[in-house]
Amino acid sequence: MKGAVIHGARDVRFEDVPTPKIVKPTDAVIRITATCVCGSDLWPYRGANAITQPTPMGHEYCGVVEEVGKEVTRVKKGQFVIGSFFASDNTCPHCRAGYQSSCQHRELVGGAQAPFLRVPLADGTLVATREAPSADLVPSLLAASDVLGTGWFAADAANVQPGMTVVVVGDGAVGLLGVLSARQRGAERVVAMSRHPARQKLARALGATDIVTERGDEGVARIEELTHGTGADAVLECVGTRDAMRQAIRSTRPGGTVGYVGLPHGVELDAEALFYAHVRLFGGPAPVRRYLPDLIDLVLNEKIDPGRVFDLTLPLEQVPEGYRAMDERRAIKALLRP
Amino acid sequence: MKGAVIHGARDVRFEDVPTPKIVKPTDAVIRITATCVCGSDLWPYRGANAITQPTPMGHEYCGVVEEVGKEVTRVKKGQFVIGSFFASDNTCPHCRAGYQSSCQHRELVGGAQAPFLRVPLADGTLVATREAPSADLVPSLLAASDVLGTGWFAADAANVQPGMTVVVVGDGAVGLLGVLSARQRGAERVVAMSRHPARQKLARALGATDIVTERGDEGVARIEELTHGTGADAVLECVGTRDAMRQAIRSTRPGGTVGYVGLPHGVELDAEALFYAHVRLFGGPAPVRRYLPDLIDLVLNEKIDPGRVFDLTLPLEQVPEGYRAMDERRAIKALLRP
Repeated sequence: MKGAVIHGARDVRFEDVPTPKIVKPTDAVIRITATCVCGSDLWPYRGANAITQPTPMGHEYCGVVEEVGKEVTRVKKGQFVIGSFFASDNTCPHCRAGYQSSCQHRELVGGAQAPFLRVPLADGTLVATREAPSADLVPSLLAASDVLGTGWFAADAANVQPGMTVVVVGDGAVGLLGVLSARQRGAERVVAMSRHPARQKLARALGATDIVTERGDEGVARIEELTHGTGADAVLECVGTRDAMRQAIRSTRPGGTVGYVGLPHGVELDAEALFYAHVRLFGGPAPVRRYLPDLIDLVLNEKIDPGRVFDLTLPLEQVPEGYRAMDERRAIKALLRP
Repeated sequence: MKGAVIHGARDVRFEDVPTPKIVKPTDAVIRITATCVCGSDLWPYRGANAITQPTPMGHEYCGVVEEVGKEVTRVKKGQFVIGSFFASDNTCPHCRAGYQSSCQHRELVGGAQAPFLRVPLADGTLVATREAPSADLVPSLLAASDVLGTGWFAADAANVQPGMTVVVVGDGAVGLLGVLSARQRGAERVVAMSRHPARQKLARALGATDIVTERGDEGVARIEELTHGTGADAVLECVGTRDAMRQAIRSTRPGGTVGYVGLPHGVELDAEALFYAHVRLFGGPAPVRRYLPDLIDLVLNEKIDPGRVFDLTLPLEQVPEGYRAMDERRAIKALLRP
């Protein structure tokens, strides 16, 4: 089969790769219905991570079970399933506590930008729908695999409660679905920080009540103004840079929480500033597995439409264009169909 | 009157200072019944903070109201009162949210190591007992002013819940009262990290179920072992150094919380390590005012005995010896009586 392989910075190729097989008795192989390019795929694409060997790409996926290993009991051939970027056994103490992305036996899933994918720990990782979903719901189900689950975790980690004023830093797909998640959790006011007209519009459609275009000190000042000098109850940090984290912390009221889901590459935090800010900080790789059953229900019941973040759909063989469009910010997020 | 004044590193003098008066109509002046030396007083004492001018010391206090300003309505002359290190109006949004130490009108209280003390924002800051307490309860009431309130906040910030396994990093007075606080909040297992026999003994008396003497990587490994590879549900960081914070974070299970109350002077945190640790972080200056009514009740009903951390009692004029004894770790905490 052919799949996406990164060879170096800005060098993603659609080329021959081995067709995945069952390796361990707990594996499943799925036929991909839809996959996509993640904001985090842009890190190696932009050269931020060293690429030491050609590496199959992609970790967001939904599809139909093609084959299961001998020890797989919950997941059946023919089911439509959604999983996430970390395979997890869903039975270890960390999984039982709801942090499946820190599973003691977790394995990274990779190579999803392809027609077939091997998923380790299939019983713990994959969640099946009762029946095959209608085609129009597939983008939203795919979103649940990572980008929605991550925005949802940002809102959960930031302890968003009904009635709160919430700020979302970052207008990428995760930030936009952070807006949706905060609203779903009952936030009264959701402020999206964005200076990009198309993203502002989508943020409003997903539930943002206010848009702030300023950044840094000016952004903090605008939030202070909007909250009558108090600061936001909860801030979702969906970027991962030092400046974005500082802005998030400084926009939060004492006793409020920053939920951060942008991987903070090489960011150092000033603990003394955090101490005096009196701000709770919580983040990490989103435990998407915990949220999947509820998110799938919300999508199937058409309560949410997170698939709207896909503003570019391409056949899988055009995957390099998906990377380019996102790198150049021409697209928010590219969906790929094998 | 005479009070404690710091002139430079290791130079605290008991010398003439102006007797405090009502300056603003919201002030009170109290006659100090008991005061003490704080771990944070050792920062300037050890030369960690520049001392640009002779500065009156002390911010932990209880005593009897001597005089109140014209706008003071709740606090009356003759009442026995306890306050804390930040004066707060107790009416601003931050106070109403329970973060009085981030009060929008907060003022630092200083000069409590003296026979009299001016307390700003008296109505918001001071909590009176119904009647004058018996002398044997005074040390425990004094503890509520800061050291107990701070240990209590560490446990609250770390989200200690009944049944949890809790680790306390730091065997100073705050850490020891963090042990007491965690136990009071229902922790099933409380591990005190200490290599000091007298402090280990007191930690056990205050509720510690386990003592770990190892530090750093070995300390983390011991906690992992004690928790069967899972990590602690909650960790109270009561030191404030980089090593102590790292140890606290690494001892916590994914989804668990570090409550930190040691002021992290110049500490930089690795945000990426925190991200992958999946650990919630919350701390800051303890909002003691929020806890004071409950802590006072617990003391007056003899449910807790936090005054046990005072292992040295001196007449106020011997305040320099109080600093020396704590600096040299000969005493856990020195109580001073004017």
